[in-house]
Amino acid sequence: MIKKIGVFTSGGDAPGMNACVRAVVRTAIYHNIEVVGIMRGYEGMINGEFVPLETQSVANIIQRGGTILKTARSKDFMTAEGRKKAYEQLKAAGIEALVAIGGNGTFTGASIFEKEFGIPSIGTPGTIDNDLLGTDFTLGYDTAINTVIKAVDAIRDTAESHDRLFFVEVMGRDSGQIALATGIGAGAEAILLPEVKFDLERLYDRLEKGRRKSAKIIIVAEGDEAGGAFAVAERVKEKFPHFDTKVSVLGHIQRGGSPSCFDRMLASELGFHAVEALLNGKKGVMVGKVDKRITYTPFDEAIKDTSKMDKDLLRMVGILAS
Amino acid sequence: MIKKIGVFTSGGDAPGMNACVRAVVRTAIYHNIEVVGIMRGYEGMINGEFVPLETQSVANIIQRGGTILKTARSKDFMTAEGRKKAYEQLKAAGIEALVAIGGNGTFTGASIFEKEFGIPSIGTPGTIDNDLLGTDFTLGYDTAINTVIKAVDAIRDTAESHDRLFFVEVMGRDSGQIALATGIGAGAEAILLPEVKFDLERLYDRLEKGRRKSAKIIIVAEGDEAGGAFAVAERVKEKFPHFDTKVSVLGHIQRGGSPSCFDRMLASELGFHAVEALLNGKKGVMVGKVDKRITYTPFDEAIKDTSKMDKDLLRMVGILAS
Amino acid sequence: MIKKIGVFTSGGDAPGMNACVRAVVRTAIYHNIEVVGIMRGYEGMINGEFVPLETQSVANIIQRGGTILKTARSKDFMTAEGRKKAYEQLKAAGIEALVAIGGNGTFTGASIFEKEFGIPSIGTPGTIDNDLLGTDFTLGYDTAINTVIKAVDAIRDTAESHDRLFFVEVMGRDSGQIALATGIGAGAEAILLPEVKFDLERLYDRLEKGRRKSAKIIIVAEGDEAGGAFAVAERVKEKFPHFDTKVSVLGHIQRGGSPSCFDRMLASELGFHAVEALLNGKKGVMVGKVDKRITYTPFDEAIKDTSKMDKDLLRMVGILAS
Amino acid sequence: MIKKIGVFTSGGDAPGMNACVRAVVRTAIYHNIEVVGIMRGYEGMINGEFVPLETQSVANIIQRGGTILKTARSKDFMTAEGRKKAYEQLKAAGIEALVAIGGNGTFTGASIFEKEFGIPSIGTPGTIDNDLLGTDFTLGYDTAINTVIKAVDAIRDTAESHDRLFFVEVMGRDSGQIALATGIGAGAEAILLPEVKFDLERLYDRLEKGRRKSAKIIIVAEGDEAGGAFAVAERVKEKFPHFDTKVSVLGHIQRGGSPSCFDRMLASELGFHAVEALLNGKKGVMVGKVDKRITYTPFDEAIKDTSKMDKDLLRMVGILAS
Repeated sequence: MIKKIGVFTSGGDAPGMNACVRAVVRTAIYHNIEVVGIMRGYEGMINGEFVPLETQSVANIIQRGGTILKTARSKDFMTAEGRKKAYEQLKAAGIEALVAIGGNGTFTGASIFEKEFGIPSIGTPGTIDNDLLGTDFTLGYDTAINTVIKAVDAIRDTAESHDRLFFVEVMGRDSGQIALATGIGAGAEAILLPEVKFDLERLYDRLEKGRRKSAKIIIVAEGDEAGGAFAVAERVKEKFPHFDTKVSVLGHIQRGGSPSCFDRMLASELGFHAVEALLNGKKGVMVGKVDKRITYTPFDEAIKDTSKMDKDLLRMVGILAS
Repeated sequence: MIKKIGVFTSGGDAPGMNACVRAVVRTAIYHNIEVVGIMRGYEGMINGEFVPLETQSVANIIQRGGTILKTARSKDFMTAEGRKKAYEQLKAAGIEALVAIGGNGTFTGASIFEKEFGIPSIGTPGTIDNDLLGTDFTLGYDTAINTVIKAVDAIRDTAESHDRLFFVEVMGRDSGQIALATGIGAGAEAILLPEVKFDLERLYDRLEKGRRKSAKIIIVAEGDEAGGAFAVAERVKEKFPHFDTKVSVLGHIQRGGSPSCFDRMLASELGFHAVEALLNGKKGVMVGKVDKRITYTPFDEAIKDTSKMDKDLLRMVGILAS
Repeated sequence: MIKKIGVFTSGGDAPGMNACVRAVVRTAIYHNIEVVGIMRGYEGMINGEFVPLETQSVANIIQRGGTILKTARSKDFMTAEGRKKAYEQLKAAGIEALVAIGGNGTFTGASIFEKEFGIPSIGTPGTIDNDLLGTDFTLGYDTAINTVIKAVDAIRDTAESHDRLFFVEVMGRDSGQIALATGIGAGAEAILLPEVKFDLERLYDRLEKGRRKSAKIIIVAEGDEAGGAFAVAERVKEKFPHFDTKVSVLGHIQRGGSPSCFDRMLASELGFHAVEALLNGKKGVMVGKVDKRITYTPFDEAIKDTSKMDKDLLRMVGILAS
Repeated sequence: MIKKIGVFTSGGDAPGMNACVRAVVRTAIYHNIEVVGIMRGYEGMINGEFVPLETQSVANIIQRGGTILKTARSKDFMTAEGRKKAYEQLKAAGIEALVAIGGNGTFTGASIFEKEFGIPSIGTPGTIDNDLLGTDFTLGYDTAINTVIKAVDAIRDTAESHDRLFFVEVMGRDSGQIALATGIGAGAEAILLPEVKFDLERLYDRLEKGRRKSAKIIIVAEGDEAGGAFAVAERVKEKFPHFDTKVSVLGHIQRGGSPSCFDRMLASELGFHAVEALLNGKKGVMVGKVDKRITYTPFDEAIKDTSKMDKDLLRMVGILAS
């Protein structure tokens, strides 16, 4: 029977991480397990930055963006020596199991660490990118797409007033999930994604035909093949010099903000089930939710590159654009 | 081959209805089908309030709450005579099929009308209550729960500042879906639902133990057995006269507002598939989405009383509350 | 030279209180003055609930609604005995001067206390009601009116969709400031205020003529002579039984939420000048801002009943309504 | 007696323009004056793009960002020939006076045009930059600063989670008004403005001392002497290579969005008084509000370069930063 667990957040911060920490802490305490917060992810694990967490430590945080446990990327943890130190710190503190909230890098680390030192870990998917196998949605994704469409709604006011063509760049280095969702949600004229080959001629075509309606929004994922919003805008400007084109790179505002209700619910459920999974002897898996069911995916599976890109949706985008 | 369809919204308005109208119009036009907007639901159908809709008629509405087609409840449509008039109006206008966006009442009407006059109808679920069979989510529900938690976040500021116990009443006469989601999302102390028997002693118990943390939020569905937030607050005040209790009935703000990204996406998809379903000869069904798949549920099934209440979630709420 | 001051919030909480506490703390520390937070207003003063505040204690709070120092109404402080206890607590803690953030009741207490025990106090106006003499705006008012119009914008979606007449009740027991501002900001058909005699016939008249446009919003201050939104709605329903009327009482959501930029700036300035005023030997005054200038108004003046109601604005409302 | 006026928006769009158009239209109609909307500013004036506006034309727009009259910059209007065409169009349409909503360029044009052709014009200040003489605030400024601080609040979540130093670039090519207000409102560590000489050593100093608190926000006006946020960030990175620095350029999101209550009120008042000013024989002036009083400033005065930069506020920023 586990008596003490550690919980940490790692990688890029995502809205819902705090809600997940809260669920982990309260579920553990309910089961008479002590909880320790490990600050700054693997970095804090190596340095022994441990904070005891009580029911009240996580009061009034469910609505906050970011992570009260802070997060960092750790180079030391990529070395055998660093991981050994981390293990010794955990052992010294009596931490017998871990809940890791993060993305690809987080789970890669957790997987290696578990194999080397045998401390059981459960992961929950905390990343706005929605690019993990084994869950329909990752924590923070729903909030991020809402943040983006609110920003695009504001930009559309200007686009409509000036009859402008706006190229809006959204996050997604390797994944077009945010671009696809927000492109549909914003009623974009076109969506450029890393997963779909860039077809300049087709874009020219759309824009030419579409000039009935003058104001237009084009959503570009930062990892788009064409090289981001500025590069695409330049190509379009070359072809249509009379278009009034503008570029907006949304950047870091996409990570922050109070989590949506969906993200708070998902975070609560996944945190809750992460602790129950540890109690049931599970380890080395990420807790996810697929088709309304809680699922457990081995770390090495979860981080596999995957395209959940829905071809049907892409076809629909073309039809719904003006 | 269908040449002209009518689209209308009916029942209580829900965010996402406009996004759905936009999708219906553009998908139909793409397939060379004319589209007519029927104003004010069945009332406008009887009165022949028809407006031709073009691609540009639905530009810049994806982000708007409410419905540009307006909505109403029609007593006349409940009579055979009223429906006959509606049929004649449709016939005169050359409308051969219908897309109905609404909830229980809307689909009940559509089902009867189709049986009587043979005009094929496809429904899409537009109601914030999320109380229809055949779809995981109805249009407007995701927006409504986000509106509620933002309101509760504001109330929590006051609750924390004054150490108050707040009873917040949310919509849901017959369904606790909004209450359950927002109770989890708001980190509520307790959630009172129509689907769960009211247990006053248990509530007393929770509140007594929970006074370590002074500020508390209790979410009450309007259809709760105990009689709504005011009634529950009174009972609690009797038992704990020294508690500083307050009641907030959120009311109509829950219906409005710009739709969330999720609702805009779902609305776009369902509107798109509603038209394609008509083209494929489907009729008398509601288009929904279940486990990431588009589904078609006969109207008479969709409106069946149903409890999607997840017992596991209720158990979790008790554990996560402070 | 003052070495240690206390700061507290009292009365109803208001957005911007935290920003003001932050400014008080940092300005004092800059001048090498120690700062003590007094919890729960006068109640905590009597009970000696004192917390030392450092630069970092007030980091990351400028954006938060409510008050980290909590607030309460204190019956004991209304007694000579209670105030004596408070004085002894302050003396024991070495607190030599006070900054009081609150409204009418707060300054009434501060005035009496200063006269009795000679501890210099400076007030800053923290109340959403904007009902104090000696400042154009009180802290929280700007945030509250923004919260209200966002709620009314959501309600308007439903009003427009259903052609409904909505009576929206906003805060303001004795003051129509919130009602007037939000009535203009929401484009209301009519605004009912405590300061203006209720004229039912005129309202009937407006509504009759105005039925060209069907959806309408009427803003009612809770302290309106007619008895609040429900009472007015009933009278209108009697006269026009065919109108689809609805009532929405916004309630406690109006107090909370992250402060607007204006409120954060005003709070920062007033907190900053409150400390500098103490250093300059001022006491018994509320710091305010009038016509872009910092002003100091004796407590007994500031709390005088006042109508800042602008007749010109009321005339304008009638003209701009549809 | 004037029988018909034209109203237009020109220059960059600003939230509150629609509220102002609404007020102009309804006030004019109240005084039995016809109103014509001139589309796309001076461009539409030259091309005769005129739309009659009724009470209902401006219903339900008070809450919308952008401008329903659209806006553009017109090169042709800078030529004598272009202005002559514009005059002939106005004459042909029977438009006897103008209300111009815009900024510097708008009023420069209006001033020349009035001198050349004698058509009386009244201006209202519609620009987010708050850089006009003769009014405390321009329309859109209050909304813009609220948009910025919400974005910075989101960025702060990430900054706090990662202990990052963020350089956030806000609008203001020639004016630091937005940067100053949002720097205070966001609790920024430092604010870089066009009006204040850039002092790199002082910034180094602040950052060095300030590292007790790791996460920091620095607000940079785009017209800052140092060359914008990227340039400043680079200099800081050179000095402190171990700092985790990030840049966020907020860009076009700052112009859009639903206007704040303050902007809707100001827009309503200024539009109302613009029409009454025309009726009272005024011309060639911008209507503004200074110290709660409506003022009239000759166009040539209003556009004079001016620094309203408050030195006291800048001193305060240094003290309140952590």
